[in-house]
Amino acid sequence: MSDSAPDRSQALNRGDLLQDLASRAGIAAEHVVPYGREVAKIDLGALPGAGEDQAGANYVVITAITPTPFGEGKTTTAIGLAQGLVSIGEQAVLTLRQGAMGPTFGIKGGAGGAGRAQLLPVDRVGLHLTGDFHAVTAAHNLLSAIIDNHLHHGNALDIEERSVTWPRVLDVNDRALRHIVTGLGAKADGVTRQASFDITPASEVMVILSLATDLADLRQRLGRIVVGRTRQGGWVTAEDLGAAGAMCALLRQALEPNLVRTGEGVPVLLHTGPFGNIATGCSSVIADRLAARGMRQGGYVLTEAGFGADMGLERFVDLKCAVSQMHPRAAVLVVSVRALKAHSGRYRLVSGKDLPEGMLAESPQEVREGADNLLKHLQIVRGLGLSPVVAINVFPTDHPSEIAEIEAIARQAGARAAACHPVAQGGAGCQDLARAVVEACQEASGAPAALQPLYRPQDDLRTKIGSIAAMYGADGVDYTPAATRLLEDYEAAGYGDLPVLVAKTPLSLSAEPGLKGAPTGWRLPVREVRLAAGAGYVYAICGSLSTMPGLPSRPAAERIDVDIETGEILGLR
Amino acid sequence: MSDSAPDRSQALNRGDLLQDLASRAGIAAEHVVPYGREVAKIDLGALPGAGEDQAGANYVVITAITPTPFGEGKTTTAIGLAQGLVSIGEQAVLTLRQGAMGPTFGIKGGAGGAGRAQLLPVDRVGLHLTGDFHAVTAAHNLLSAIIDNHLHHGNALDIEERSVTWPRVLDVNDRALRHIVTGLGAKADGVTRQASFDITPASEVMVILSLATDLADLRQRLGRIVVGRTRQGGWVTAEDLGAAGAMCALLRQALEPNLVRTGEGVPVLLHTGPFGNIATGCSSVIADRLAARGMRQGGYVLTEAGFGADMGLERFVDLKCAVSQMHPRAAVLVVSVRALKAHSGRYRLVSGKDLPEGMLAESPQEVREGADNLLKHLQIVRGLGLSPVVAINVFPTDHPSEIAEIEAIARQAGARAAACHPVAQGGAGCQDLARAVVEACQEASGAPAALQPLYRPQDDLRTKIGSIAAMYGADGVDYTPAATRLLEDYEAAGYGDLPVLVAKTPLSLSAEPGLKGAPTGWRLPVREVRLAAGAGYVYAICGSLSTMPGLPSRPAAERIDVDIETGEILGLR
Repeated sequence: MSDSAPDRSQALNRGDLLQDLASRAGIAAEHVVPYGREVAKIDLGALPGAGEDQAGANYVVITAITPTPFGEGKTTTAIGLAQGLVSIGEQAVLTLRQGAMGPTFGIKGGAGGAGRAQLLPVDRVGLHLTGDFHAVTAAHNLLSAIIDNHLHHGNALDIEERSVTWPRVLDVNDRALRHIVTGLGAKADGVTRQASFDITPASEVMVILSLATDLADLRQRLGRIVVGRTRQGGWVTAEDLGAAGAMCALLRQALEPNLVRTGEGVPVLLHTGPFGNIATGCSSVIADRLAARGMRQGGYVLTEAGFGADMGLERFVDLKCAVSQMHPRAAVLVVSVRALKAHSGRYRLVSGKDLPEGMLAESPQEVREGADNLLKHLQIVRGLGLSPVVAINVFPTDHPSEIAEIEAIARQAGARAAACHPVAQGGAGCQDLARAVVEACQEASGAPAALQPLYRPQDDLRTKIGSIAAMYGADGVDYTPAATRLLEDYEAAGYGDLPVLVAKTPLSLSAEPGLKGAPTGWRLPVREVRLAAGAGYVYAICGSLSTMPGLPSRPAAERIDVDIETGEILGLR
Repeated sequence: MSDSAPDRSQALNRGDLLQDLASRAGIAAEHVVPYGREVAKIDLGALPGAGEDQAGANYVVITAITPTPFGEGKTTTAIGLAQGLVSIGEQAVLTLRQGAMGPTFGIKGGAGGAGRAQLLPVDRVGLHLTGDFHAVTAAHNLLSAIIDNHLHHGNALDIEERSVTWPRVLDVNDRALRHIVTGLGAKADGVTRQASFDITPASEVMVILSLATDLADLRQRLGRIVVGRTRQGGWVTAEDLGAAGAMCALLRQALEPNLVRTGEGVPVLLHTGPFGNIATGCSSVIADRLAARGMRQGGYVLTEAGFGADMGLERFVDLKCAVSQMHPRAAVLVVSVRALKAHSGRYRLVSGKDLPEGMLAESPQEVREGADNLLKHLQIVRGLGLSPVVAINVFPTDHPSEIAEIEAIARQAGARAAACHPVAQGGAGCQDLARAVVEACQEASGAPAALQPLYRPQDDLRTKIGSIAAMYGADGVDYTPAATRLLEDYEAAGYGDLPVLVAKTPLSLSAEPGLKGAPTGWRLPVREVRLAAGAGYVYAICGSLSTMPGLPSRPAAERIDVDIETGEILGLR
């Protein structure tokens, strides 16, 4: 009953399945550690040694234009592209973020692709996987407990209670945990404080796990986490509280990437899942380095960056690649007919509701009206030093004239473009895209692209935020007085060299979700700034921000069940 | 870096390790599913078929006299006994509760035995294992979120908010979560309520997992969970809320027992970990049935019941064996010199502090003064229809005259007795005990012992509670008016046929932790009653009760770390 298959003879061959999968990813058998019949962890002995050259692999990042609330199918396109590359004879491996479990029981009802572009085994990918998210939850909440315990037992570090910024986390959609009061009851029941729970992907521990280059780096980053300040204005770290070693112990296995597969048997490293808004939104540095090591000369390592290129790709370059020192040869920019129509400004799309009916009528004109967003994202991709390949993710309701219109827009802008059908046709429907990516990488491998970070480490924090805002198309940045003061505090404390991350709506290039296309004549409003000293960045919050989702009135949980005869999990897509 | 061993050649043989271990437990290779190199899950195909006879195995339960706050070493004695049986040529398998992770970072610094009576691999047994506790946490908190979501989205079932008894849970020692207020913030942030977190072992989901006989039974028990009442007085279940199917999906893998080993290579099924106070305190029904199936005729299945015989053994018989229909042939009653000295009433022992110095002086007299407690427990064991074997767990500070005194007391009472040295000597130090257990089982197998439940299902709830109180030695039971009213409500709603569980201090046969020996002239005060409809019992709370531990002023977490070179986890014991 472990995993999905009830058939015994099939189950007995599962050991071969994992070894075969690993071998296709170029991972030696000795590093493959089964966790169930269809999932393995790869031990860190599979990582490249110091100075080992990884330039042989083509590293490709999948990003998108500004998405609609439905998403443009970045993950399914990434899966389809990996399958497409293999189907035209290339070697490929895909690295993806693990999805949170909370939303599975909310609107989503599943995670990990769809149709012929999906991840297997569905049940393990959708629920628990190998427990890495639970390990992050445990490590995070151990630190939370140690903070409150420190306050309770005399507060030797003289922590200012109201300065504590470290929340608790759970991988559940539970709006009632957004704002809570803890430590009620008797004196023995702790110090009374305002507190909160975020969903686990929003934990700084998750970003740390995704950025750590090895166990030593993980340990150091955990120690550097800042949880609050002393009454004298000092900075209190997880190391000061004696928590970082135990947190590292809780995370040791979670640092090892998980090996799963696509429906067509392409190896996938599914590892870590930092939030797209307040975190990097990228899968792990370790998985990418491990994947690149396994590839033959000219093999493909595909990875995805969260949200649109303005957010995910910028962070991928300025945060993740700055750590991994890996340089992508191409960026696949996923676009859909519906998204460009939405960028015409004619429609208002709402998550959980159907598409507006008028949007389904054939209209290349509306597609053209939304072109500014695509053009702006092409400019962002190039500005970061990457060669774009436009992937038109075709939905069943799209019209050929609309697809042709997008191809024309892309080509006019000098970019490669190809339509693809990952969900309906799998790899066979993504061969044109695969060939376009091969061409782009061949071109780039002649003259390796130099990544163009948006700013230099020595720039001050406001200069860095300003550089990002300019890339978005803003006329400038407005700071609240509290944000300005805190940025000065960070610089005075030596955190000024850190990169910055802008948390804004993913639904617009601007900070205003309703502004479609490529908005101009606006300023970026920085409401609040926060420090993620362990992850290694400062983040600026622009507009409202939710780090704990709720459940809808009819949660997907109601449709999920188990077939008690076969053990099969039902309703997970 | 997975698991504890850095040596590669050793690691490559780990597959054999698990198969060899399973084969010693009589489990066919096809049912062994590795989760890491040194831990496996056993799929439920290994369970006996309907009506399959399991009478061939000797089922032995390890219990204890009323313990000191330090515990009398039931787990180490169980491990040592299993090793002792194997060392004298018997086949044996041990089934144990998995320890919670929270306390590992508190006072304990580890779980799973000590010295030469310990469980391996230490790191996996101490941290996460295969994530079953996390699955319980997730399933439990999904139901919590669905309850609050139901209140938020219009409360169609008309739930009386203040009647909700379903808390949230986390596997962490965090006193600040004992009493909280949730749903603060704006209207979109849920309904404001008083709420609480328990530690995960206190979850009703954990007891359900431990008592479920198969996947179908698990699904039904989850559906029967009662979370609160309607404004009309009706009972609201997890099934009513549409949550039980998704909870079952989250628990499907956790229903499979985990295979680990003792330091001497005896197979151990480590599975589920319900609390000893408000829950059964026993490991799972499924693990015991699976273990019994694997034994040759005359092999030994050893299992442990929580706290002293008054609590854990009674629940083992009246709750666990009533479900499993398995009949133990003997009960090992663990006793120590220090515990009998404590029962003399001369000393006050405090958890986390050293033993009083005077207690270490040679004094068979003080041992004799505490004999009443041992005699009372022998009576309890026999009253439940079981043949007792007294196991004297010898500590380094004990004196031979004291050990001899306990042997004399036990033999005067007609019980077998043997000293054992599990921690210092492993199996070799437990061979006398092993032989005593073999004799007791041989005697019992001639005339299979009929278990003697304390009460009949058709007795009313107060009669059942009264039977348990009488077994403790109480003169009667006092109920608060609220408890009386609620018991009547339960009976009116059809819950009167359920068994009962008394939650009282484990540190005395009475409800008063300071009363040592075998107290008489006292009454059992039932302060509150609660319904665990999914687990299938009503419980009566007598005295104060903590279901969320705190951390001490210097938590063990401060001593736990990772060796960044080898990946070894440090400080876990």
